[in-house]
Amino acid sequence: MKTILAELLTIGDEILYGQIVDTNSQWMSLELDKVGIKVIRKTSVGDQENEILTAFAEAEKRADIILITGGLGPTSDDLTKPLLAKYFNCELKINEEALAEVTDFFVSRGRELTEINRQQAALPTACIKITNPIGTAPGMWFEKNGKVFMSMPGVPHEMKKMMTERVIPKLLETFQMPVIVHQLIRTAGIGESFLAEKIAAWERALPSHLKLAYLPSLGEVKLRLTAFGEDRALLKTQIAEQIEKIKPLAGEYIYSLGEDSLEVTIGKLLKEKGLTLAIAESCTGGYVSHLITSVPGSSEYFSGSIIPYGYEIKMRQLGVKPETLEQNGAVSEPTIIEMASLVRAKFNTDIGVATSGIAGPGGATADKPVGTVWIAYSDKHHTVTKKLQLSKDRMINIRLSSAAVLNLIRLNLPK
Amino acid sequence: MKTILAELLTIGDEILYGQIVDTNSQWMSLELDKVGIKVIRKTSVGDQENEILTAFAEAEKRADIILITGGLGPTSDDLTKPLLAKYFNCELKINEEALAEVTDFFVSRGRELTEINRQQAALPTACIKITNPIGTAPGMWFEKNGKVFMSMPGVPHEMKKMMTERVIPKLLETFQMPVIVHQLIRTAGIGESFLAEKIAAWERALPSHLKLAYLPSLGEVKLRLTAFGEDRALLKTQIAEQIEKIKPLAGEYIYSLGEDSLEVTIGKLLKEKGLTLAIAESCTGGYVSHLITSVPGSSEYFSGSIIPYGYEIKMRQLGVKPETLEQNGAVSEPTIIEMASLVRAKFNTDIGVATSGIAGPGGATADKPVGTVWIAYSDKHHTVTKKLQLSKDRMINIRLSSAAVLNLIRLNLPK
Repeated sequence: MKTILAELLTIGDEILYGQIVDTNSQWMSLELDKVGIKVIRKTSVGDQENEILTAFAEAEKRADIILITGGLGPTSDDLTKPLLAKYFNCELKINEEALAEVTDFFVSRGRELTEINRQQAALPTACIKITNPIGTAPGMWFEKNGKVFMSMPGVPHEMKKMMTERVIPKLLETFQMPVIVHQLIRTAGIGESFLAEKIAAWERALPSHLKLAYLPSLGEVKLRLTAFGEDRALLKTQIAEQIEKIKPLAGEYIYSLGEDSLEVTIGKLLKEKGLTLAIAESCTGGYVSHLITSVPGSSEYFSGSIIPYGYEIKMRQLGVKPETLEQNGAVSEPTIIEMASLVRAKFNTDIGVATSGIAGPGGATADKPVGTVWIAYSDKHHTVTKKLQLSKDRMINIRLSSAAVLNLIRLNLPK
Repeated sequence: MKTILAELLTIGDEILYGQIVDTNSQWMSLELDKVGIKVIRKTSVGDQENEILTAFAEAEKRADIILITGGLGPTSDDLTKPLLAKYFNCELKINEEALAEVTDFFVSRGRELTEINRQQAALPTACIKITNPIGTAPGMWFEKNGKVFMSMPGVPHEMKKMMTERVIPKLLETFQMPVIVHQLIRTAGIGESFLAEKIAAWERALPSHLKLAYLPSLGEVKLRLTAFGEDRALLKTQIAEQIEKIKPLAGEYIYSLGEDSLEVTIGKLLKEKGLTLAIAESCTGGYVSHLITSVPGSSEYFSGSIIPYGYEIKMRQLGVKPETLEQNGAVSEPTIIEMASLVRAKFNTDIGVATSGIAGPGGATADKPVGTVWIAYSDKHHTVTKKLQLSKDRMINIRLSSAAVLNLIRLNLPK
């Protein structure tokens, strides 16, 4: 079966100048991917006639479906509609149905229909009008030589509603789609290249209709396995078989097969086991707590934190022994062990974790360079510590240390 | 003077499939705009040889500068480097300087250099190597017929550092640009449309070679005033005159004229006045502390925090009176007043601030819907509280509350 290809075309100077972030195209990609339409290109051009017309012609050569957003407002710098009329060699004419809809939109809100609003009902005669259920600019669907051009408003909630309710169903009627199945494999605690080496033989042995992608970010590496074919159930079985094969190679690093982030995974584990958590974080300055509390419902298992940033505070608020600090310094294994068990005792939780390190750029000593971080995990059974040697960059150190603490929790929770 | 045109080219299936949001290209647009380079197109293509080579050739026809991100990792689905070698008709060869850098990167972290890592030092012989100060994939700079191709890693923090420290300065040496002077005016505590109304007459009266842009983000609105011309000193004087005119209109909202974020501004104020800060944050879950400690040197004025997430912890660890909680609930003015003054006393600091609210989606009551947040500031002279009514979205509520607390500190510090 032929793969149906789509190009996403965004029109508007505001995207090129960086004044708005284009969140539409990521959302559209995910929706198209779900139904098996392959996005082969995303293009953004400004509000300039020749740029827009060239982009139409180039996209038509490459893709079966061209999805256009933006440039549909009522103001004079919005060029999409007249240029679509020009490209499809037809006139702009008031569409009576569209006029009734735009009139109704204004009347129902008790507002007057101005001439500018009326012009929103003027459409290229070659298009099929697609109703905008929550706005005034209609969508426009064109077909030409088996290809589809579809123009939608750039306002995210209008575009999303039109795409979900009208465009995707109409595309599924128009084209025959292959089946695509994706599987995420999320790992933590191992770098991209080390993971690649561990699973190299497995990756080489993948059948040709299964493709693997590495998606690294700070503190984790996601793998995405994609299967192309015709039989969804078969593809799912084949993916499940591959998951069983990768587990012996990278099992300890895999923390989730799906959408759950590391903090969501830990939240589920804590809830499942009925355990509570408290945190003493120094060098991470609140970021571990922020990750934990970014998960809705985290108050069920997270009791709270102390951030003993100052040296004095480590003693006075948390209770670290002065002699431990004097003999070993704040960034040391004896100190981090005390911090983790003290916060557990103070907050009366099952688990305590702690961080202490030199985030930088200041604070380094001869034997403790910037990027030296100690982390610890403590529960009633045992205490586990880990020393990290990270980067010279403060924010990277904060984020990598925080990811490492979350992974330490995951690996050491009582079975 | 000829306008210098740029195209941004993003390589990677993960963008086309929508599994990551492309935040790089917006950031790059803003940086290029600052130095007077005009972005005329943004293109994203997948990990496919013919698509990538076609994109190179098309971009070369349109733009003077082609900035490429992504596809530089050590794994086999990363094609940018071999295809740049093919496009520029040269070999991939180990670059000794790059090898020394990547070796140093691993050695300094006490990790082994694998063969896959070693291959990151293999570069097209036609390129100038651009050092990656915080990662292992070097940048590559090519020149051809007066045009520049520059390939950078897709990892945002690596790309940003490389672009700021190496690429922009090198572009400014290579191309002749018009003189552009930018002035940021950072405001907090007022929404975009309200600010626009306050300064409407001022904006209308701006001379035509001065352009104003609104750059709103969560919790703040930045204004960017840009002057185009030939005489830098003159442009700077003209901008300074406009700043004097806007101050009487929006002065209380303006917190910085330049790069300083709100947390940096507060850090400078606290240091200047020799004051110390402690935080009791409940609904913000560590995010206020994270913002404060993201600033290098914050240990000079930030003593620490308590995050009393659980109801019990508010009493036991912070000392909020049980009757205050029982009579008013955790999200109330009496509770927030106690929290701010208690944390100040406990940590023995000059200033205490506190947050308590319903971040959502759970936890709402009839009279306290999701998005209800109390914040407070306390010093020895006075205590100030503020009630916020925010959104239904947990992360937006956390971020907006945190920005509001920072602004509360700024506005209430002793003179």
